[in-house]
Amino acid sequence: MKKMATVSLLLVVSSAVAWGAGNPMNAAQEMFKPIPFKTPNIKDNPSNPAKVDLGMKLFFDPRLSNSQLISCNTCHNLGLGGADLQETSIGHGWQKGPRNAPTVFNAVYNVAQFWDGRAADLKAQAVGPVQASVEMNNNPELVVQTLKSIPGYTPLFWKAFPGEKNPITFANMAKAIEAFEATLVTPDAPFDRYLKGDRKALTAKQEAGLRAFIDNGCVACHGGINVGGSGYFPFGLKEEPSAEVRPANDMGRFKLTNTEKDKFVFRAPSLRNVAITQPYFHSGRVWTLKDAVGVMSTAQLGINLTAQSSDNIVAFLESLTGKQPKLQYPILPPSTTNTPHPTVTVK
Amino acid sequence: MKKMATVSLLLVVSSAVAWGAGNPMNAAQEMFKPIPFKTPNIKDNPSNPAKVDLGMKLFFDPRLSNSQLISCNTCHNLGLGGADLQETSIGHGWQKGPRNAPTVFNAVYNVAQFWDGRAADLKAQAVGPVQASVEMNNNPELVVQTLKSIPGYTPLFWKAFPGEKNPITFANMAKAIEAFEATLVTPDAPFDRYLKGDRKALTAKQEAGLRAFIDNGCVACHGGINVGGSGYFPFGLKEEPSAEVRPANDMGRFKLTNTEKDKFVFRAPSLRNVAITQPYFHSGRVWTLKDAVGVMSTAQLGINLTAQSSDNIVAFLESLTGKQPKLQYPILPPSTTNTPHPTVTVK
Repeated sequence: MKKMATVSLLLVVSSAVAWGAGNPMNAAQEMFKPIPFKTPNIKDNPSNPAKVDLGMKLFFDPRLSNSQLISCNTCHNLGLGGADLQETSIGHGWQKGPRNAPTVFNAVYNVAQFWDGRAADLKAQAVGPVQASVEMNNNPELVVQTLKSIPGYTPLFWKAFPGEKNPITFANMAKAIEAFEATLVTPDAPFDRYLKGDRKALTAKQEAGLRAFIDNGCVACHGGINVGGSGYFPFGLKEEPSAEVRPANDMGRFKLTNTEKDKFVFRAPSLRNVAITQPYFHSGRVWTLKDAVGVMSTAQLGINLTAQSSDNIVAFLESLTGKQPKLQYPILPPSTTNTPHPTVTVK
Repeated sequence: MKKMATVSLLLVVSSAVAWGAGNPMNAAQEMFKPIPFKTPNIKDNPSNPAKVDLGMKLFFDPRLSNSQLISCNTCHNLGLGGADLQETSIGHGWQKGPRNAPTVFNAVYNVAQFWDGRAADLKAQAVGPVQASVEMNNNPELVVQTLKSIPGYTPLFWKAFPGEKNPITFANMAKAIEAFEATLVTPDAPFDRYLKGDRKALTAKQEAGLRAFIDNGCVACHGGINVGGSGYFPFGLKEEPSAEVRPANDMGRFKLTNTEKDKFVFRAPSLRNVAITQPYFHSGRVWTLKDAVGVMSTAQLGINLTAQSSDNIVAFLESLTGKQPKLQYPILPPSTTNTPHPTVTVK
C-alpha cells in the first residue's frame, strides 16, 4: 500500500505540473471522487434495513460498555461531525486514550480503520473499543450476556440476521454496527458539487486553495473519494514534527510490523469534514486548520507555504464539509432484572 | 407541602376503604390523571418551536460541560427512559455523584426538581448539574463564552428569544432546556388509557395491582398526574430502611432547611416509566421493582405485603410505561477556533 501511494505521488506531482495554472476542475475530477448519496455495499456483510436499524441502536447503546455509560456515539458523536472534540478520547474511569478519535463519517471509504490501519474494516474496528480497557472496558461474553438479557433486542437480531440459529453474538453486534456506520456518509459537500461540474460550488478562494492543494502535492496522500484515508505514509517525511505533535512514544505502524520503515507511519486521514472535527493529527495537539496546514507543509512537503496559499488551502478544506446524516434518536430496548449491572470501578 | 400531603393521605385511605373491593376505575380516576398529549405551558417561560429546538440542541451538547464530554443526555438518556441506569451518576473526572439521576420524562409535572426539591422548576434545575463539580464542572461565564464562540448558535438564540438584545445568556440556556424538557412527556401508557375509560388497557393482574396500590396506601405519596412527584415525605415513615438503601450521610431536605422534621425527607418520585428506570431510590441501591415494593411496604406502610399483592403491584407499575418521545438526533453547530478547548483535568 505504501509503495503504491509513493508511485501515485509521483504521478500526481507530474500531472500537477502538466495542467499548470488553468482551471483545476478537470484535474480534480481525475484525483478525487464525490461521495455518492447511495450507501455503499460492504464486503462479507450484506446490509438490510433491519441490520442498519439494529446497528444504530447498538451504536447509541451505552450498555455495550462495562460502565453502561460509554457508547460508540460518545467518541464518535453523530451531532459533532462523528468525532468528540478531544485531543485523545476519554474512556472508562476517565482514562485518556492514546490517539485522537477519527470521525466515523465516510469511514466506510477508508482503506482500513484506526490511525495505524490495524482493522481491515468497520466490523473489525467495532470490536476494538468495546474491549479496550481505556475505552469501553468490556468483553465479548459480558456484551452477549447483556444483549441476551434485553428481550427487546432478540427480535431485532433475528430480523437483522435471518436464518441464523443463534444470531445474538459479538461478531453480529459488530456486523450490525458496520452496516449502520456504512450509512454514515456526508455527500453533497460544496467540493462534491464542484466535482460534479458546478464550478460555482467553490468560491474563488476555495478554488485557488484546491489548486494549491494539488500544486504543492497535498493530494498525493489526500486524494480519492475520501480526500485521504487510502494509504500509509510516514509522518515527518521531510522534516520531523515537534515532539508535541508527534509524540516519540507512538511509532504508528511500527508497533504492528516491527519494521524500521514503518516508524511513525500512519494512515493519512480523510480530510472530509475536517473543518468540524478538530483537533488534528493522531495526537490531537493541533486545534486550527491553519496550524495543521503549517505542520503538514513543513513535515510532509518540506516547504513553507505563503500565508495566502495557506489561507486558500484552509478555505478549500472548509468546502469538504458535507451534509451530516439525519437520524431519529433510537429508543433503546429496556434492561431487565437479568441485565448485568454497570461496573464503574477501574482496576 | 408536607402537611398537605399528610392530610391527603388520610383522605385517600378513607376513600379507599369506602370503595371497597369493587372496580377500581372510578377511584383511580379521582386519584390519578392521564398525561396529556399536548405539551404543558411553563410558568414564566413561554414556549415556541425555536426555543424547543434550541433546547434540544443544548440538551444534547456536551460542550455545556467543562470536559465537552458530558451533556444533559449523558445522565438523562432519552433512549433509556430519560435516566442512566447508574446507582448514582458518574460525572467529570469519573466522580460518582451523591444521588440517583431521576428521569427527565414528565419531570415538568413534578412539584419541584431534584430529590430534595431544591429547584422550583426545570430551568432552576438545569443550571445545577452544569455547574456541579462532580457533574459537568462548568461555570456560567465559560458556558456563555463557549456558546458565543459557536456562530451556529447565534441565530438560534435570536429566534428563541425574540426582542432580547443579548439573548445568549446562561439563564436563557436554562430556559431553552426547560422548554425542550417540557415536551418530554410519555402519554398513552396502558394506565393512561385505563384512566380514560378503557378497562381492558390493564390486565386483570395489573388491575388487582392498582387495587392493592390504593388499598395499601401507596397512592398517598404516589398519586396525581405523575403517580408521585408532588409532595415530600420522610423515607422511613414507619420503619428505618437499611443503611445501604438510605445512607446515613444523606439526610434529604434536612440539608436545605436544617429542621429536625426534614431529616430523611425526600420528594416522592414519580412512578411513571419506573419499570425502565432502575435502579431505585435516591441511593440507587435497589435494582428490581419487587425489591423496591418490598422496601416501600415495610419502610413507609409498616406492612408486609403478600407475595401476590407485591407481584400485582409490580404488574401495575409496569403499566406506567408510556410512549417514549421520538426525536431527531440534533446536528450541533460546529465549534470554531474561538471555542474554548475542553478541560478534562480534575482539581
